[in-house]
Amino acid sequence: MTEGNKQILLAARPAGFPTESDFRLVESPRPSPAAGEVLVRIIYLSVDPYMRGRMSDAPSYARPVQIGEVMTGGCVGEIVESQNPRFAPGDIVEGPLGWQQYAVSSGLGLRKIEPKLAPISTALGVLGMPGLTAYFGMIDVCRVKAGETVVVSGAAGAVGSLAGQIAKLHGCRVVGTAGSDDKVGWITGELGFDAAFNYKTESNYRARLKELCPSGIDEYFDNVGGPMTDAVISLINVHARIAICGQISQYNLEKPEMGPRWLGQMIVKRARVEGFLILDYAERFGEGLERMARWLKEGKLRYREQFAEGIENAPRAFLGMLRGENTGKQLVRIAPEP
Amino acid sequence: MTEGNKQILLAARPAGFPTESDFRLVESPRPSPAAGEVLVRIIYLSVDPYMRGRMSDAPSYARPVQIGEVMTGGCVGEIVESQNPRFAPGDIVEGPLGWQQYAVSSGLGLRKIEPKLAPISTALGVLGMPGLTAYFGMIDVCRVKAGETVVVSGAAGAVGSLAGQIAKLHGCRVVGTAGSDDKVGWITGELGFDAAFNYKTESNYRARLKELCPSGIDEYFDNVGGPMTDAVISLINVHARIAICGQISQYNLEKPEMGPRWLGQMIVKRARVEGFLILDYAERFGEGLERMARWLKEGKLRYREQFAEGIENAPRAFLGMLRGENTGKQLVRIAPEP
Repeated sequence: MTEGNKQILLAARPAGFPTESDFRLVESPRPSPAAGEVLVRIIYLSVDPYMRGRMSDAPSYARPVQIGEVMTGGCVGEIVESQNPRFAPGDIVEGPLGWQQYAVSSGLGLRKIEPKLAPISTALGVLGMPGLTAYFGMIDVCRVKAGETVVVSGAAGAVGSLAGQIAKLHGCRVVGTAGSDDKVGWITGELGFDAAFNYKTESNYRARLKELCPSGIDEYFDNVGGPMTDAVISLINVHARIAICGQISQYNLEKPEMGPRWLGQMIVKRARVEGFLILDYAERFGEGLERMARWLKEGKLRYREQFAEGIENAPRAFLGMLRGENTGKQLVRIAPEP
Repeated sequence: MTEGNKQILLAARPAGFPTESDFRLVESPRPSPAAGEVLVRIIYLSVDPYMRGRMSDAPSYARPVQIGEVMTGGCVGEIVESQNPRFAPGDIVEGPLGWQQYAVSSGLGLRKIEPKLAPISTALGVLGMPGLTAYFGMIDVCRVKAGETVVVSGAAGAVGSLAGQIAKLHGCRVVGTAGSDDKVGWITGELGFDAAFNYKTESNYRARLKELCPSGIDEYFDNVGGPMTDAVISLINVHARIAICGQISQYNLEKPEMGPRWLGQMIVKRARVEGFLILDYAERFGEGLERMARWLKEGKLRYREQFAEGIENAPRAFLGMLRGENTGKQLVRIAPEP
């Protein structure tokens, strides 16, 4: 076949905040599956904060994308050819297929999606990695507990919006921070957060948090880091649990930011700070997805998805997500649903 | 009786590093026990880093000492009068009796010591609060595990010297940091640490730790904080556990020190930082003391005690301890043993 496959490659390692010139659009020949493989037509591509890390060659938990390689990313797509008995043409699958229109896969890491249960795009959001991250971060790392006060930073993002709702479902007072008045309106309205504020127009995070958390802070689900996290830590209660999910305020700095030291506060409050990665929970994904799907079916979880159109717009969607332009989950529609 | 009771009062709240003028020596009448009370002649007074916190009125886990009050502190003493059926004259007890020669107590918080088992001063060290702190910090917070690499800061202090030995007993590689070549010699010699260095003569903590911990750092028992902790955190392995026991480098600062932010590293390494206070383990003190006493009897734990002489010298001993002049446990001998 001579049909093409548009792909986005990593063109350069960003210095500071990435730009569109760090990516390159190319058109390659469409690949063919060998024995045991499948060809997937990608329908949705997820853009996520962790991808910023993969663009750098600093040591991390995953191998960086090499210059000239297809950018890594989670996708939902349709099997169009199969040489693998586990998959048939027409199957909808989710997996790490990259920023491209078509991908060949051995099937490893591909998960079959049942389109009747929920929109297939949710396999990249509420019923995918962001949902699982919110679930295990809140249940296992924060050890969510009824009656406690929970703060979520980046609360209008794909993960934060779900983390806060999970805390609400457990009977907590939930306070969120977000980057626009619209986002604040969404999370305190439709999502049912008890309170929230726009960090871009608030000059004193600590005073505002103190007002909104009159009983102090027991759990903190952090997606952001920086001065917001400093303010939260200054207000924690005894035996507080802090889950470090992301530090998006720090990912695009050219040198490490300085901040006030706060480990003394950890002693006084006998508090715990724990970083986590959803990959470590792989053996329990079934449990997490089952719970999230049940809450979704019962109408107890709300989510929002935002779509950019076309593989060409993936870099722009990614950069917009890093700037916080999205509300809820940012996706790129690569091809129409079947 | 008209006999006196020399006491050290808090005279002023220190600004920055405390001085002798922050304390005042007074002589009060010797108190008499009322019904249910005992009179204790204090033999040993412990001076510990946490006392710096009690001199300040910043919010903390314990009520600050008020200006004009007797300084708070753990003591070993002898019952000289008893109106309490639990205690008889001649009993040796340990408890929070303060910086003074005599104290009246209801018996609450007093623990009877068996002088045949070990020197009674050890009830303030290896068989007391420092020993329990090392034990629960290493066992519960660090979750010490054979074959792992453990770093202990303040490793020649009362707690650090025991924490490192407990890690050795569990089959770890143990690296310590301390403030003099003599201390380094003691912990790598008599105490059996695998390696140690003098932080006062080492300009690049990270390079030195990297050399001494070729497999990275799995557990960190931190008594010190500041740049040493920054260096350790930059070298941690996946699933590292960091126990924050003390932050002595920070206690005498007039404003919070700034340091590089490192929460991103917690995510990459899925690592945990936990502050702890020995008071939270009160229900398990029996377990801890039994274990420490057994190791001591088996010759598996070494300790060193350093004595200042006389209640008048308690402030100087305390300030010296804050400056790191002690090796092992710093005590003040208030009166001779019976």
